[in-house]
Amino acid sequence: MTASLNLSRRLRRTPFTERAEACGVSGFTVVNHMLLPKAYRRSIEEDYWHLRQGVQLWDVACQRQVQVHGPDAARLVQWMTPRDLRGALPGQCLYVPLVDGRGGLVNDPVLLKLDSDLFWLSIADSDVLLWARGLALGAGLDVTITEPDVSPLAVQGPRALDLMVEVFGDGVRALKYFGFARFEFQHSHQVVARSGYSSQDGFEIYLDGGALGGALWDALWEAGQAFDVAPGCPNLIDRIEAGLLSYGNDMTLENNPFECGMARHLALDGSLECIGGDALRAIQREGARRRITGVTFGSDPCPACASPWPVTGDGPRGERIGQVTSAAYSPRLRRNVGLAMIERGFWDPGQGVSVHCPGGEGLTGELTALPFVGRS
Amino acid sequence: MTASLNLSRRLRRTPFTERAEACGVSGFTVVNHMLLPKAYRRSIEEDYWHLRQGVQLWDVACQRQVQVHGPDAARLVQWMTPRDLRGALPGQCLYVPLVDGRGGLVNDPVLLKLDSDLFWLSIADSDVLLWARGLALGAGLDVTITEPDVSPLAVQGPRALDLMVEVFGDGVRALKYFGFARFEFQHSHQVVARSGYSSQDGFEIYLDGGALGGALWDALWEAGQAFDVAPGCPNLIDRIEAGLLSYGNDMTLENNPFECGMARHLALDGSLECIGGDALRAIQREGARRRITGVTFGSDPCPACASPWPVTGDGPRGERIGQVTSAAYSPRLRRNVGLAMIERGFWDPGQGVSVHCPGGEGLTGELTALPFVGRS
Repeated sequence: MTASLNLSRRLRRTPFTERAEACGVSGFTVVNHMLLPKAYRRSIEEDYWHLRQGVQLWDVACQRQVQVHGPDAARLVQWMTPRDLRGALPGQCLYVPLVDGRGGLVNDPVLLKLDSDLFWLSIADSDVLLWARGLALGAGLDVTITEPDVSPLAVQGPRALDLMVEVFGDGVRALKYFGFARFEFQHSHQVVARSGYSSQDGFEIYLDGGALGGALWDALWEAGQAFDVAPGCPNLIDRIEAGLLSYGNDMTLENNPFECGMARHLALDGSLECIGGDALRAIQREGARRRITGVTFGSDPCPACASPWPVTGDGPRGERIGQVTSAAYSPRLRRNVGLAMIERGFWDPGQGVSVHCPGGEGLTGELTALPFVGRS
Repeated sequence: MTASLNLSRRLRRTPFTERAEACGVSGFTVVNHMLLPKAYRRSIEEDYWHLRQGVQLWDVACQRQVQVHGPDAARLVQWMTPRDLRGALPGQCLYVPLVDGRGGLVNDPVLLKLDSDLFWLSIADSDVLLWARGLALGAGLDVTITEPDVSPLAVQGPRALDLMVEVFGDGVRALKYFGFARFEFQHSHQVVARSGYSSQDGFEIYLDGGALGGALWDALWEAGQAFDVAPGCPNLIDRIEAGLLSYGNDMTLENNPFECGMARHLALDGSLECIGGDALRAIQREGARRRITGVTFGSDPCPACASPWPVTGDGPRGERIGQVTSAAYSPRLRRNVGLAMIERGFWDPGQGVSVHCPGGEGLTGELTALPFVGRS
């Protein structure tokens, strides 16, 4: 489901946008006031199959870094998340829910601990820069918070390792999932992490210095010819199957981490000073009122989910029990797959439901556990 | 200059999106994670002429309200802006630059003082909700900060008054520019302000309760048949001619109010406790290093400005002296008009320049004062 996008400087181009255009990008979305390619020449199904066999370059520069640096940096970052960071080491990525005073999700970035007093928050779509600066200014913390000229480029797919070795050397083999290290590229030292927003193996290069964008893309593109490289982007089918949530789509400031399958990341024993701790402990005591689940429904491809679709139960009253927030047709499962926020009492796998897409009858479906499929 | 936009729930629809679609909306942009219609069936030039003679309905629900309420509300709002709010009265709109600790622009909302302890900040494109919550949480202020279900609909053009009288009664005649009051609509009481992002007379209805969106649009549409009503949107030509800046386009967090023609709104005598006061006083002492000016250039229509265009001086060295950040062809002036951020020493009206659009020679032009034309 697409419309036309009127371009302006406010929708920032990335160091890779020119290359994406040269590769025939045919659709964008906007994340963090920046263009994110969302479609090239091939269909989402073709991209899905390719992602499971080749390697793709994704311009995910919109995953902006919020850099927190200074004497109070560790204190501020810990204050911002209910995840326990006391054991975190430099070279480690951590998925860190950020919440506000009521426990509502502000963002769900990946944290990179670069040094004991230097952190990057690699963010989803909300202005964490302003949130962090507001907190620091209000509390009088001694930190410098900036958005550096760092633009992630993702290399995803089963042949990502081969390609990365070709460009960055054998050292990348040693990277474990959610580990990062610095590697040389054209006399610069770039952070490379083994990570990415797909079900496949992959890497993210946190390109420091946008002027190198074309050179980095070209180096990967040329070396990638031996490994079935293609331009790509976060694949909706793949990420739903993998149970990867999207901030703004599947969760918002109105949701808390318990509703979003993040309970295992929370340290609520009271030993951390973190924003929203009391609110989250209250929710923990009472139990979440709703929860993200998977759902399969219908056998004809559904449209894109541009606003939440009501989900009703299959009981005699057919009452509303939740909503679908992301959905796509899975060519492997030959069913539509979706992520749904479902009320307590109804969220068990196997629950029969109807999904109400616009302009149609309710489609019969069933709730499922997440992920639909494990990481490959 | 358009591309395709891939829709998802994250790009929120508004209470008026369905009506915009029924009117043939053909392009959107994204502001505050929400769809803003940017084109209908007619060209931007046709819309420009129509805006000067009829009346248009603009879905500007993306101008989200950040509501600040509670015992410390007035203190927080004053802390957020270097504009003196001590004389502000309920019923008054004020243009309030928001700055961070370094004097960088966080946003440039219109402030509505609803009561002594209740304010709305009607924002441009950045998450002021997070900025304000961060400040309040950090500083321990006793306020509640929310995004209420309020969606502005703008009624713009010389026949706006006639149409508004038809729908809201004779009382709207008493509204002065940047004044607001509550008016009844279908048993609700809605804030109506005499304001808008155009050079023309107009109003903004701050619709409280999205469920009334269709009814409000329909009422204005039906009554508007007598006044040459049309769907519309902020018109690029008109707003450039009027010297109306766009946050994210013509100014960012890297700019300060002195660079953006906002000096008259600042109260820097030290009697206010406001964020960035010291930084702004230092800039005031040294003088701004650059400033927004108008520029006219070329006589063939330029493309849309999707990233800043270099501006060089007409001196023998032709050095870079700034950049154009918004531009459009003015059918009235028969020249391209633009907004440009120009270095000190070069910003006087009459300065000869070359504007370097992509893929062409430099276009000869001249700096001009803002606005290009006065308010009608």
